[in-house]
Amino acid sequence: MNLSRVLIYGMGLMGGSLALSIRQKFPSTEISAVVRSEKSKSTILNKQLANFVFLQNEFLTPNWSNYDLVVFSTPVESILKIIPTLPKSGDTIYIDLGSTKETIVSAVESYFGDLAHNYISTHPMCGSEQVGPEAAIEDLYVDKLCILTSPKSASNTSLEWVRSFWEKIGSWTLEMDSKSHDETLAYLSHLPHVISTLLVNVAGSNSTTKKEILESPKPITGGGFRDMSRIAGSNPDMWISIFKENQVFLCQSIDDLIQQLLEFRNLFGSNGSFDETQIRKIWELAMVNKEEIRKLK
Amino acid sequence: MNLSRVLIYGMGLMGGSLALSIRQKFPSTEISAVVRSEKSKSTILNKQLANFVFLQNEFLTPNWSNYDLVVFSTPVESILKIIPTLPKSGDTIYIDLGSTKETIVSAVESYFGDLAHNYISTHPMCGSEQVGPEAAIEDLYVDKLCILTSPKSASNTSLEWVRSFWEKIGSWTLEMDSKSHDETLAYLSHLPHVISTLLVNVAGSNSTTKKEILESPKPITGGGFRDMSRIAGSNPDMWISIFKENQVFLCQSIDDLIQQLLEFRNLFGSNGSFDETQIRKIWELAMVNKEEIRKLK
Repeated sequence: MNLSRVLIYGMGLMGGSLALSIRQKFPSTEISAVVRSEKSKSTILNKQLANFVFLQNEFLTPNWSNYDLVVFSTPVESILKIIPTLPKSGDTIYIDLGSTKETIVSAVESYFGDLAHNYISTHPMCGSEQVGPEAAIEDLYVDKLCILTSPKSASNTSLEWVRSFWEKIGSWTLEMDSKSHDETLAYLSHLPHVISTLLVNVAGSNSTTKKEILESPKPITGGGFRDMSRIAGSNPDMWISIFKENQVFLCQSIDDLIQQLLEFRNLFGSNGSFDETQIRKIWELAMVNKEEIRKLK
Repeated sequence: MNLSRVLIYGMGLMGGSLALSIRQKFPSTEISAVVRSEKSKSTILNKQLANFVFLQNEFLTPNWSNYDLVVFSTPVESILKIIPTLPKSGDTIYIDLGSTKETIVSAVESYFGDLAHNYISTHPMCGSEQVGPEAAIEDLYVDKLCILTSPKSASNTSLEWVRSFWEKIGSWTLEMDSKSHDETLAYLSHLPHVISTLLVNVAGSNSTTKKEILESPKPITGGGFRDMSRIAGSNPDMWISIFKENQVFLCQSIDDLIQQLLEFRNLFGSNGSFDETQIRKIWELAMVNKEEIRKLK
């Protein structure tokens, strides 16, 4: 695998951690980074995350073909603007680390048409509440899933190169088409973040709960609430970007949840009665679904 | 503190763990247990959780006054049946470990009326997915919150005795009236369990998500879903009992969540537009609520 020169376009937690992984797995690779702020630039140089760092406004007419691999690690919106500026030939491999795939893959497919190309969209699933290159860690990607989405006309060799790259970094890979990716991620990631966020707001809006919380010297919450609230309210910029790209499937998953909540709510009568059998069925189904989704058995 | 003889009525995970804590903190105390099954009886004797173990049908005319402390560690429904059979005088202290307080405290208040008594309802907040005396652990209560709810006419000395008992066991204590307890717990514990359970069912009901899950050799989920699904579907008997006792506040909390989900859903227009400003406000509010509830600052 030839990886003499890599460009990481956008170097926050994800890009910075990838730089550290490349340093470890491909020690002779020369890393270049493009960032927006002077602060990021100096952090990257101090932490030696890259050999060369450019500010975005110093990198207006990039020669992408200088690199064996270009990694787009910025919000999806800005990746969508870059795609139509890429060269239509050459050996450079392009990947992104976007959390949604459908808009990126559509942009790649409509730009390249039937022309063979080397753009593979990837999604390493290793979020964190941390942000910025200062939070970069070497083993962020180790034992994590990286989903590979191959746009039409992407060359098979580029797909296999990218798979092999992520596996050398330490991830395990799975292929998914862009629609399946975005729908699955709506249910397994985007909806959980919405729920966690709304749960703390629902609890915080109840005056009795709020009063008890404020009067207590320590948290009243048990382990359940702690787990359920960990991801609440984190990283609004990233989530707004994800909701923008994936709103159809996100809304579908929210509608499904509202439907199931209404059905659950209707199991309780106004006279203190409730449908114990049905609640037991819902609980048993949840145990089956949980074991299946988390592969506990 | 005189604790020569304690009776733990119902010895599963909670009662068994309390027995282990008492063995450690009050080594000379004689522990008696009442259980329903022969299996529990032999587990308790094998693990030496109690000095004497009775089956419920061997304990039909109990002399409660033989004990310094009686701990009811059975589902709330069965505690409600025992309360009207307790002696109306004597020095025995009575506590329970029930997850809801309003029905227990009402039963105690209507039984004792204006008569001074020694019944204090307590709620040690240390759930687990484990069940049964075989899962008992010595430090289950250490550094956990135990909520104390004092019914009308409970003697002040019994309240202070019970507080001191739980603090010696290693818990920290907080007083709450029964209604505030049940309402607060609906938002901080019961609703989170419902949400976790429905979340895995919503994800499991989406055919695309299900297909990707079944085809993947390992879990597709990231840390967010893992945390959000940990408590899903656990211990249906316990939850059905809690829902029975606390359905008014539980339904109120579900209605609040449905309302907030509908409001969130309405921020997305049908034409791909959405209210970014409002989503940002919801995320920022969640961060404030999370820090307040979990005392992160």
